[in-house]
Parts: sequence; structure tokens; C-alpha cells
Amino acid sequence: MPPFVPSGLLVLASDFGLEGPYVGQMKGAALAAAPVVRIVDLWHGIPPQAVRVGAFLLPRMWDRFPAGTVHVAVVDPGVGTDRGALAVHQGGRLFLGPDNGLFTGPLGAGGEARRLPPAPPGGPPPSATFHGRDLFAPLGALMAAGSLTFSSLEPPATAPVLLDLPRIGAAADGTLRGEVVWVDRFGNALTSLPADRVPPGSWRLQVGDRFLPGLATYGQVEPGALLAHVGSFGLVEVACRDGSAAELLGLRPGMEVGPIR
Amino acid sequence: MPPFVPSGLLVLASDFGLEGPYVGQMKGAALAAAPVVRIVDLWHGIPPQAVRVGAFLLPRMWDRFPAGTVHVAVVDPGVGTDRGALAVHQGGRLFLGPDNGLFTGPLGAGGEARRLPPAPPGGPPPSATFHGRDLFAPLGALMAAGSLTFSSLEPPATAPVLLDLPRIGAAADGTLRGEVVWVDRFGNALTSLPADRVPPGSWRLQVGDRFLPGLATYGQVEPGALLAHVGSFGLVEVACRDGSAAELLGLRPGMEVGPIR
Amino acid sequence: MPPFVPSGLLVLASDFGLEGPYVGQMKGAALAAAPVVRIVDLWHGIPPQAVRVGAFLLPRMWDRFPAGTVHVAVVDPGVGTDRGALAVHQGGRLFLGPDNGLFTGPLGAGGEARRLPPAPPGGPPPSATFHGRDLFAPLGALMAAGSLTFSSLEPPATAPVLLDLPRIGAAADGTLRGEVVWVDRFGNALTSLPADRVPPGSWRLQVGDRFLPGLATYGQVEPGALLAHVGSFGLVEVACRDGSAAELLGLRPGMEVGPIR
Repeated sequence: MPPFVPSGLLVLASDFGLEGPYVGQMKGAALAAAPVVRIVDLWHGIPPQAVRVGAFLLPRMWDRFPAGTVHVAVVDPGVGTDRGALAVHQGGRLFLGPDNGLFTGPLGAGGEARRLPPAPPGGPPPSATFHGRDLFAPLGALMAAGSLTFSSLEPPATAPVLLDLPRIGAAADGTLRGEVVWVDRFGNALTSLPADRVPPGSWRLQVGDRFLPGLATYGQVEPGALLAHVGSFGLVEVACRDGSAAELLGLRPGMEVGPIR
Repeated sequence: MPPFVPSGLLVLASDFGLEGPYVGQMKGAALAAAPVVRIVDLWHGIPPQAVRVGAFLLPRMWDRFPAGTVHVAVVDPGVGTDRGALAVHQGGRLFLGPDNGLFTGPLGAGGEARRLPPAPPGGPPPSATFHGRDLFAPLGALMAAGSLTFSSLEPPATAPVLLDLPRIGAAADGTLRGEVVWVDRFGNALTSLPADRVPPGSWRLQVGDRFLPGLATYGQVEPGALLAHVGSFGLVEVACRDGSAAELLGLRPGMEVGPIR
Repeated sequence: MPPFVPSGLLVLASDFGLEGPYVGQMKGAALAAAPVVRIVDLWHGIPPQAVRVGAFLLPRMWDRFPAGTVHVAVVDPGVGTDRGALAVHQGGRLFLGPDNGLFTGPLGAGGEARRLPPAPPGGPPPSATFHGRDLFAPLGALMAAGSLTFSSLEPPATAPVLLDLPRIGAAADGTLRGEVVWVDRFGNALTSLPADRVPPGSWRLQVGDRFLPGLATYGQVEPGALLAHVGSFGLVEVACRDGSAAELLGLRPGMEVGPIR
């Protein structure tokens, strides 16, 4: 495994949204702990408390950032309970957040987990409701600045939580089916069907009783027409040229799509 | 009072929202004035023109940032009128923005106010509608960079505006009542009731004709149940586990809550 | 033309919105290409696929940033088709994005266009749907860091696309008319009527069958009253004091306003 060499870069993801004051407070706590870190927002629009959506999509974005990055991720419906708090080292990056399956990706890729201390060094115990500000952001900043090391942390008392992420499944007829994972502001529906399971040559994706053509780009259909394509996440997406596929088809996260034929 | 030693950090808060182009323009003007400053967003989702909400909540976030920070805050319904423009020095931090009560917190904590010049040094006079971009951001950047000092500013001609912030009040029966200050995206309602007025032991918060249990965490109620708890701002919040308390109870800013029993 | 001297500053604008994970991915790709760049968001709330709105409004914001800035702008309905990809050098700044008219402003101001390579140096070919992440952000970062120079790029094979931007037009009666360009979160409607065409002295703007007084500031009307004024973009705006002009008047982008009398 590549070692972690801190670059001073701290990247934040959460379900807090940017309309509220929560992300800004995380930044204040991070900068108070380590004024030198550079903070970048990855995504704060994870659907509220949707740990599984974060666990599925974040790994496809984390590996775009350079090695040496500390990633703090907070989707934390169990805050204030006795759920654990982790740092995970994988691929030359560190991941900090709640032990609720959010790091299933890096852990499944061979990541090593350590237990975070119950409070930042010398700091007060965290509030019962906002560990993003009181625990994860300051600890992440200290690790991004190199003043707290992964090797100084203790192993977790119990095995980290792993989630059963959205996966393709072979139906009775041998075909591949997936589910809608997330719908973006344009009405594109991201599915769990990965690019490498799309057959070569021409293909169609069944969505309800519709059969959508599998195409390379929007430009291959008329405005208003539906299509399936391999999107920027490396996943099959359902889209509508110049329109909202989600609205036209009533797509919502969790709905089954497929098979691909 | 601790002196102000500029750290190069400029933190922005406003009611501009991030869907519009206003915050980005403030950053351009700040960087044009002082290219070395580091800019961090605190909160741009203050309800439009809600000076009182900003004045009440921002102090609870500003003190999370390290000393040496320059905070620019813009909730400015009086822009273009003859309202003043202030820099306030308090707690080793500077606060820049309109003189409309937004800085009631730092002023009430012993902050010293100075009058901002009518335009950035050498710059054109500000537009009549966007002092965030034309005055506060460039002046804040110059002060964050250390090239404009607080001591070089003149005292204000008149005493700074102070607002009557949301407070708890003793009702006729001696009980404590507060108000809803802000509702977040999860439907949690922040009240003006501070943590230190919550009685030890078990307590309940009356909201309309409901009595909500005062608890430490969401996990102590069933999904869908309502509760009151001391939230991350150090204020009593009304919440619903896995749901929206604001929707269930019809809560809106300004509504009375209490008493706590 | 002033030369381009990279300052390390990379400024992003797009129609991706901040609720989705697209902007964060652009930042990851930029930092992976050139870890030293400083990234600032200008505006990600351009209406989806509204190239013309971006082309009209962005130039009025870009020139607020210091010379030496690299601006990446992505409003890209033609992604995945054979539309070109440009770097434009104008006013000591660089502009990178799709060749679809988004850079009509800098090109019309004498900017020089070069063709971007089909992929970042040594990188994989871009996906068919997200050139913001796969092409423009990493190339912009390399140019902001000074490790890819404008002069090393080749001239475009064809003349860059120019758009017919919203303009004032002289109607049959000699009066000036414009259109609504964009409506902000406060319900203010930005029009295409520029400040320098507003007559000296008193004036009125016709909107539908209403005649709105042209005033300097909101404070000159009663709460709830409508007005026209020269806004912070140097354009005539339609506004309502303490209310939403767009809601009251049913204003939408593209609607004709005027004449000014």
C-alpha cells in the first residue's frame, strides 16, 4: 500500500447541504486546529442520512484527488449514539468519519482502519449532534497538516461496519439488473449498473415497460428523447436530451432498472 | 482585548445564497485587492434580509475560526441608503459589514468599532446595490493581508446600531419561553433557548399544545418521533428522528416555543 | 494585449449547481493535475445549458478577478459531439471551455483563441459526458500553474463560435427595449438594458402595462413597491422593495421589457 504523505489538503463531503451553516462551521474548526490546511468541498448534497448513497458514490470521486489528501466524510444518522469513529488509510489517502459503512469502499479495497480518539487533542468532548465540526474536521485538519499521524492511532475495538452496496444481480433469466442510485438536478438517473457489464455493440436498457437505446452521447437522439448511456461515474445513466428523464419516467432512488439486453 | 494579527484568512457570510453569482463576485473583488488572501465561505444561506437571524447566529460560528481572521458579513437591506459601514475589532478578529445591528454580538462583547472609508483606496465609489463586492470584500481582503490596519480607520460618527436579539423571557408564570430562530434543511428548528437554561434532570419543551421530551440524542426516540435537545449551537432545537419537525409542527421563524418544564 | 502571467489562481463557473457532485470532481481533477493551484468558485448556478446567459453575464464578472487568473467555464450541451474546445487569451486572463459561444465576450474584445488538446498530457481520453472534469479542469490547472503555456497550443481549425447576445434594440418608435436575462433568488430580474442607455434625469421602465419608476435605490420606494434601477452588473434591474418583482410581474428569462422613457 502506498504510504500516506500529507499534502495539507483537506477535502470535505457530507449530507449537510450548503444552504445551512454546518459546512462553514466544519471549516472554522479545521482551520482553528491547523491554520495551514487547504480546504476543498467535494460534495455536500448527499441525500440526508443516505449512508449507502455516499458509500457507493464517494469512492468514485475520492480517487480523482491526489494522493496525500485527507478526506472527511460525514453522513451520520447515528451521531450521539455509541457508533465508532474511524480513520481509514487506503491508496495513499486518509478517510475520516463515522463507522457506519460510509467507508465500505476503501475498506473493501484493502484499507486499514484505526480508531479516532474521542475528542481532538486538548479539546473539549464533542457535542452529541455535530461530530463533523467537533471531531472529524479538526482531526482531519491535524492529519492533513501532519501533526497527527495515522500510525499513532489505535486499532478499532471491533471490525469496521461494511455495507451491502447497490450491486448488479443476475435475475432468474440470467439478465443483469440494477437500481437507481441518485438523481441529479438535470433529472439524470444514475444506476448501479457498471460500464464493464454493458455488452459490446448495440444494447438497450429496460426501465419499467420502456426500452431505452444505449448510446454514446445525448447528441444521438432528438431533443426530448430518452436514452441510456455510460456516464461520467462509469455507471449506466438514464437521461433525456434537453429534458428530465427522472420526471418523464418517475424515477426515484432504489427503483429497479434493467435488464440490459 | 487580544490584538488583531492578520492571518491572511478572509471568511464570508451573507444572505446572497450560492445559486446566484454574488458570492463569486465578492471573491473576485477580494482577490483583485489582495491576491494573497485565502477565502473561506462560512454561510451564505442566511434568510434574505434577515439581519436579526444573522446577528443572533453568526457570533456562535465566528468564534470557531482562529484569531487573526477577517470576517465579512453582508445582510444589507439598507444598501444604497445612508446607513454606515463598520469594522469591529473583538476577540482578535475583525468584522466588516453594514452598520445595521449585524455586529450586535461582537459589539456587545466589548468590540471596538471604526468607520470604513466610503470606497477602497484608489478605487471607484461603490455601486448603490452591492457593497459586498464593491466595499466590504476588497476592504476585508486588504485588512486580512495586513495592508490596511484597523488603527488607521476613524471612529464612527454615531454609535453603532445594536439589535434586540431573540432572547428568553420570563412569562407571567415564571417559565422560560423562546422563539424559533431558523429551520434547517432537515426540518430541525433552532430556538433561542440557550443550553444553560435547560434544567438538570428530565425536562419537556412545550410547542403549541405538544409536550416534547428533552433528550440527549435522536437515538433515544423511535423513528418518526419528536424530541427537544440541546443542539450543536448550544441552543434548544426541536427535531424529529428521521423526519421533519418543522413540517410536522408547522414551525416557522418567529413562532414562540416554550415553556421548558 | 497584456501578456498572461499565471498567478496560480483557477476560477470555475458552470451550470452544474452545487447540490450535485460535479464541481467537486472538477476540483479533484484540477488538484491531481497541479496540486499547487488555488481554486475559487465564481458561479455554478448558470441555468442548465443556458450558454447565452453565461456568455452574457460571465464577462461582467470575469474582469473583477485579477490578471493572471485562469477561468474555466462549462455550459456544455454539446459535450460528446464534435464541438471544439478552446483556450482564449484576453486581458491578461485565460478562458477555457467548450467552443459554443460561451466566450463570445472575450473573443469580441479581441481575445485570441487556441485549440485545446483532446486530452490532458499523458492522461486518458475524456469521458463522453464530463469534459469539465476530464479536460477543462486539469488543463486549466496546468495553465494556472504555468506548466502548460498558451503559446504551445495550436490555432483552432475553424473560427470560434460567436453568439448573438441579448442586446437592446431600437423599436419602430425609436425607443429602447431589452429582455429579462436572469432572475435571482430575491426575485430581482436582470435585464439586458445597459446603464449607459438610461437617460439622465427621471425615467420610467415599461414592463407589460406597468410603468416602473427608475430610481437609485430601494430605499426610495415603500416596502412592497416596484422599481427599476441600475444594478450591480451595470444593467437595468426590475426589483420590489422587500418582495419579489419576478413573482409580482410574472417575469421570466427572455421576456421583453421596455421601453425606457
